[in-house]
Amino acid sequence: MASKARRITIVGASAAGLRCAARLARLEPDLNITVVESEESFSYAACGFPYVLSGDVEGLEKLRHTGDGALRDASYFAAVKGFEVLAGFRAVEIRPAAHRLVIQGVAGTRELEWDELVLATGARPRRCAGQPEHPRIRMFHRADDLRVLQDKLSGKELGKVVIIGAGFLGCELAESLTAIWDTQVTLVEAAQAPLSKVLDPEVGKLVAAVLRQNEIELLTSRPVEKIEANEGGVRVTAGGRVLEADLAIVAVGLEPAVDLAVDAGVVLGPTGAIAVSDQLATSVPHIWAVGDCVEVAHALTGGPAHLPLGSLANRQGRTLANVLTGRADSFPQVAGAFAVKVFDCQVATVGITRQQARKHFDSVRSVWLSSRDRPHYWPEAKDIYSHLVYDASSQRVLGVQMVGAGDVTKRIDLAAQWLAQGVTLGRLGQLEHAYSPPFAPAIDPLAEAAFVALNQEEGVEALSPEAPFPDLDILDVRHPQESQARPLEAKRVTCIPQEALRQRFHEVKGRGWLVVCERGPRSAEVARLLQANGMPACYLGGGLRWRNRITPMP
Amino acid sequence: MASKARRITIVGASAAGLRCAARLARLEPDLNITVVESEESFSYAACGFPYVLSGDVEGLEKLRHTGDGALRDASYFAAVKGFEVLAGFRAVEIRPAAHRLVIQGVAGTRELEWDELVLATGARPRRCAGQPEHPRIRMFHRADDLRVLQDKLSGKELGKVVIIGAGFLGCELAESLTAIWDTQVTLVEAAQAPLSKVLDPEVGKLVAAVLRQNEIELLTSRPVEKIEANEGGVRVTAGGRVLEADLAIVAVGLEPAVDLAVDAGVVLGPTGAIAVSDQLATSVPHIWAVGDCVEVAHALTGGPAHLPLGSLANRQGRTLANVLTGRADSFPQVAGAFAVKVFDCQVATVGITRQQARKHFDSVRSVWLSSRDRPHYWPEAKDIYSHLVYDASSQRVLGVQMVGAGDVTKRIDLAAQWLAQGVTLGRLGQLEHAYSPPFAPAIDPLAEAAFVALNQEEGVEALSPEAPFPDLDILDVRHPQESQARPLEAKRVTCIPQEALRQRFHEVKGRGWLVVCERGPRSAEVARLLQANGMPACYLGGGLRWRNRITPMP
Repeated sequence: MASKARRITIVGASAAGLRCAARLARLEPDLNITVVESEESFSYAACGFPYVLSGDVEGLEKLRHTGDGALRDASYFAAVKGFEVLAGFRAVEIRPAAHRLVIQGVAGTRELEWDELVLATGARPRRCAGQPEHPRIRMFHRADDLRVLQDKLSGKELGKVVIIGAGFLGCELAESLTAIWDTQVTLVEAAQAPLSKVLDPEVGKLVAAVLRQNEIELLTSRPVEKIEANEGGVRVTAGGRVLEADLAIVAVGLEPAVDLAVDAGVVLGPTGAIAVSDQLATSVPHIWAVGDCVEVAHALTGGPAHLPLGSLANRQGRTLANVLTGRADSFPQVAGAFAVKVFDCQVATVGITRQQARKHFDSVRSVWLSSRDRPHYWPEAKDIYSHLVYDASSQRVLGVQMVGAGDVTKRIDLAAQWLAQGVTLGRLGQLEHAYSPPFAPAIDPLAEAAFVALNQEEGVEALSPEAPFPDLDILDVRHPQESQARPLEAKRVTCIPQEALRQRFHEVKGRGWLVVCERGPRSAEVARLLQANGMPACYLGGGLRWRNRITPMP
Repeated sequence: MASKARRITIVGASAAGLRCAARLARLEPDLNITVVESEESFSYAACGFPYVLSGDVEGLEKLRHTGDGALRDASYFAAVKGFEVLAGFRAVEIRPAAHRLVIQGVAGTRELEWDELVLATGARPRRCAGQPEHPRIRMFHRADDLRVLQDKLSGKELGKVVIIGAGFLGCELAESLTAIWDTQVTLVEAAQAPLSKVLDPEVGKLVAAVLRQNEIELLTSRPVEKIEANEGGVRVTAGGRVLEADLAIVAVGLEPAVDLAVDAGVVLGPTGAIAVSDQLATSVPHIWAVGDCVEVAHALTGGPAHLPLGSLANRQGRTLANVLTGRADSFPQVAGAFAVKVFDCQVATVGITRQQARKHFDSVRSVWLSSRDRPHYWPEAKDIYSHLVYDASSQRVLGVQMVGAGDVTKRIDLAAQWLAQGVTLGRLGQLEHAYSPPFAPAIDPLAEAAFVALNQEEGVEALSPEAPFPDLDILDVRHPQESQARPLEAKRVTCIPQEALRQRFHEVKGRGWLVVCERGPRSAEVARLLQANGMPACYLGGGLRWRNRITPMP
């Protein structure tokens, strides 16, 4: 092994580390590449864990195989990819000056010499304050966590489970546990709605409705105060409420695994993750970092963010391999595109929420839309509820949140390309898309959202779907059959269908109005018309559909 | 009617004209807006016609209603949108100097005075050379065309139909006619594969396979020489072959309807459509044009293009309303995003084909991929066949064509945003997307396509899936079970699985190779490895899956 080849040592055999190693070996077959991994079994597609539990994916081992059926173990990486994985070795110390990494396996300690060191140490689940160590209080992160849960479910030991945290993992697990198992799930969340890091409350409440329709007991605004466990069960105290169950799963987010880096003097950023340049260099020469342990540059805040996502990890691994072999490459700013499936509902977002935006911009406003992913006449057209956040003074789009049975990831992907570039409402409205009735309406919901925001800036103001009704007369402009089928429970309601309004204008003259309809467009049109005739008017954003949380049914 | 209000007259009540009128009326309720329309019934969502025929959409009238169930007739536009539609009036002459439009209805001729005139005259179906007028030889464009076809189908008059032209309409109609009707369809095409305007032949042949799997008789490279009809039937002679049927449908594309414009001295562009500025002004002051009758600026060729698409028409209508009311707006260049459903296969493209690209760029190359729209372990993951065309010297991406049962419009929409901006392969590879296993793989197929092209530029060259095998030894690197299940019908084949290659390197030494596998990635890796060891090598683009046209089954 006393070769003259450049030695590259990588700590961590997940997406970022393995991708980097594989590309390095392809680009320069003479490199001496070693990946150190603490687990004996590795290279699972861990994002698939909840779907093994739900039965969607046929088994854990499927997540460790390639598309053509090869098992991704150390011998696979040696034979096919051309690099060594030292599995079952924990990296315990970096000696930057000596260019050495100390690793520890069952047989003892070894030292590896490197020319370049890559940290791909990943992230680990955050713990609750005062969380006791007990077999009935679990995290869900590693393959072993999945195996334990599967065993207990198969053994019918889990009649009732409390999940702490309604973030993306909490929502995924709530669905998985109820999918084929007869488990009763209580999901406890400190914020006022699920997915609060990426959704403003009025959007999160749509997701809450979906969870509840699917028989998840969802408790919001309930910060966990105490977790206790004994042989008989677990007891979670949250917002004064005591929940008893067979198991508690803590799913309150991920934190970067940076101990090794910190000990070596690598500088962390304000998020607590490793600070890296756009070429993925750390503060210590010849030490690089990729994946869930690093910060990325967020295009909307202009500052750093910790976004542990497999898609970013993969791209960073590839980018670093390019950099380390002298190619011109760098990792760009990210817009923060995110997606999660919650039963039959898709949730996807990009950019920042209104709440986050207010910390960075002065004139943050937003609009709400209840639209469809295909033309209304297409039989499989499904709902999309959209919330678009923007800065009024610059007309810059800051965030898009979409929820619904419709195809929302498609639109969030589109938004991601533009938001990172600082797109304005006007430009987003000129979005080009591949239009055909089976796939999309003639105006895409994302462009429509931009139009609605532009209209708002011209004075057609939306009231938030969650806001209390203001002290205005309410004008219901739906067709009579709609108003009768779904009557409006409010005071001072006047029903005049949009199509009759111009004839019956004398009935509305001289007053201020909140105009309402099913989805928003009709009431927005009427609000504009009233204003043009000298009457103050606004409309209900997202229409009564949103306000009444008419969410996709199972 | 002697009001002082500005008079805007619009010719044509389809998407572009009506959208423009409706927004004008919203922005300036005092405008005097008149839309002139030759048909009595109008405002159909005509893109849905084939799906009425197939039974997907429940009836023609559905296409004339809004999402909330209102019928879009003249009284609807007057009452709800606030403008007049003169239906049943044909615009016969523009007098630009006098600012007058002559229109003709059943009751005679009238003249309308305008301050601004908007031409939204649309497109009409192209005819074949020497196409006779006969009830058995039909076009499919207007609601009446659909009604006639429905009647004949219901009356079981159409046992056999010949469709001339395998463009998007021909493909849609072929599917519609076989969907619920027991009609035998022959689809005749002059080019060597379907959809030849947007797909290079090796991609079009995948669509051909789908059509044939669904029992369409597809005849390619057969230009139509003669169409004859009599009371008993129709006879189409194409490429020397005589086809007899009950009906022929001519679907050879659309041409802009520009007679009225030409007579008024409005200048046409090189495509034969009306030339407009980015503010949609024609060459004649105060005459504007939008929709299927105008040219757009194509971002990839830098020149004009005629792209009659409902999505562009809608946006142009809105843009022109903004312009006419003094707002800062303009219609941007287009990348040409396009989609069509062909049975269970999605086809979507953007940019230009390799064939078109060669007219504009000097170093056009392309790559082929057989990938999936979701992670391979996801049970509903479906195939996507991608063809990416680029200019090697600038590394600019020129076109992307995707076909498959997988979600391809999503990726083409993404590509559309970037291609219009002149994206390079490197930047496209850094595509950010919302990743979650139910919706997308960690590396999106579009980014993967960029990677494969970048690899090709580093020397990992792909052979076209349709090319004859070159005079090289073939190295099959699939697993033995794959090679046995789907053996390669070729001479000089050596089978060494990728995982065994490093051990068996002596068996391949010193020769040139074409490396093959199922989908491409394994053979590309091996080709790179062989090259690094001094052996000339290339790989089969898209793998054997593409070459053998393993297309989505019904």
